[in-house]
Amino acid sequence: MAHIDLGLDEKAHPGINGPMRYRPETAKPLNELAEALLRAPHPTLSPGERELIAAYVSGLNECRFCCASHSAFAAAQLPAGTALVDQVHADPAGAPISGKLRALLRVAAAVREDGRKVTGELVEAARAEGATDLELHDTVLIAAAFCMYNRYVDGLATFAPDDPQGYALAAERIVRHGYGAS
Amino acid sequence: MAHIDLGLDEKAHPGINGPMRYRPETAKPLNELAEALLRAPHPTLSPGERELIAAYVSGLNECRFCCASHSAFAAAQLPAGTALVDQVHADPAGAPISGKLRALLRVAAAVREDGRKVTGELVEAARAEGATDLELHDTVLIAAAFCMYNRYVDGLATFAPDDPQGYALAAERIVRHGYGAS
Repeated sequence: MAHIDLGLDEKAHPGINGPMRYRPETAKPLNELAEALLRAPHPTLSPGERELIAAYVSGLNECRFCCASHSAFAAAQLPAGTALVDQVHADPAGAPISGKLRALLRVAAAVREDGRKVTGELVEAARAEGATDLELHDTVLIAAAFCMYNRYVDGLATFAPDDPQGYALAAERIVRHGYGAS
Repeated sequence: MAHIDLGLDEKAHPGINGPMRYRPETAKPLNELAEALLRAPHPTLSPGERELIAAYVSGLNECRFCCASHSAFAAAQLPAGTALVDQVHADPAGAPISGKLRALLRVAAAVREDGRKVTGELVEAARAEGATDLELHDTVLIAAAFCMYNRYVDGLATFAPDDPQGYALAAERIVRHGYGAS
């Protein structure tokens, strides 16, 4: 049970959905930020790649609800699907992704730990693999944002379902309608 | 110098201001979230108290720009001003604040570490001091959000001025016009 009374059935509104319904004033910018970062048109990073960064950071933060959600959202939008997402979680250094995406995941992991861990070397390594300023900016902000979403979800002790079916249904909704449509 | 080319004079647009001008699509929800959390009308927590939570978390994260900024914003809106903000940074357990605010700062410090560190005991201790569900919700989200803002600012290695005058001027602007008006 969540730490506060969200005034709803937590099983029907798991994870971040409960506090978002409880506090629509903050839900609006939280959803708009997710939409801008993960789904809005982007010159080079696909929605699947951006969701993969979000899923990876949520996995490192061990936020069960966010990790299951964004892993499902990434899998639904990447040609290699769930198998690739699982490989990235298990072994990002060995997973069959581009050198650029691998370098961006390293930047994201550093941000997750502490912003000051993003060294010039990590940034230069990403540039050497072809990463642009915009990709570096968005990677830093996606990783930072999931350090927020993860803490929001876990700090309120919201309910995280075990059944993967719920996450798959959420993925269908996100891919079709985007964030903020729930 | 920042890790990416923000296309502007970093000294004229220090800290989060540079990346916000660089990427207005994400600046909009980031500013709206700060406005909703820190300045929008609230039944019980004043803007100064909410800025104090933001400053406290930014201090724990050792984010120089955010800590100096939100300490100035808190001081400008709390009757006891800078002296109180300094006491909270130095010794939150001994600072002359209400028992409720002290308990909420303990919740915020737990969120900063990891959402899962927010125990039922911490929540009950805050309730015993009179904290409401809304205050607990907003404290968790303010602390989580500053784990994002701090990482965004430091992860891009933005410029943080030493001179307190700039932060005092920013405080005047925020108090008068709010977030997103710069």
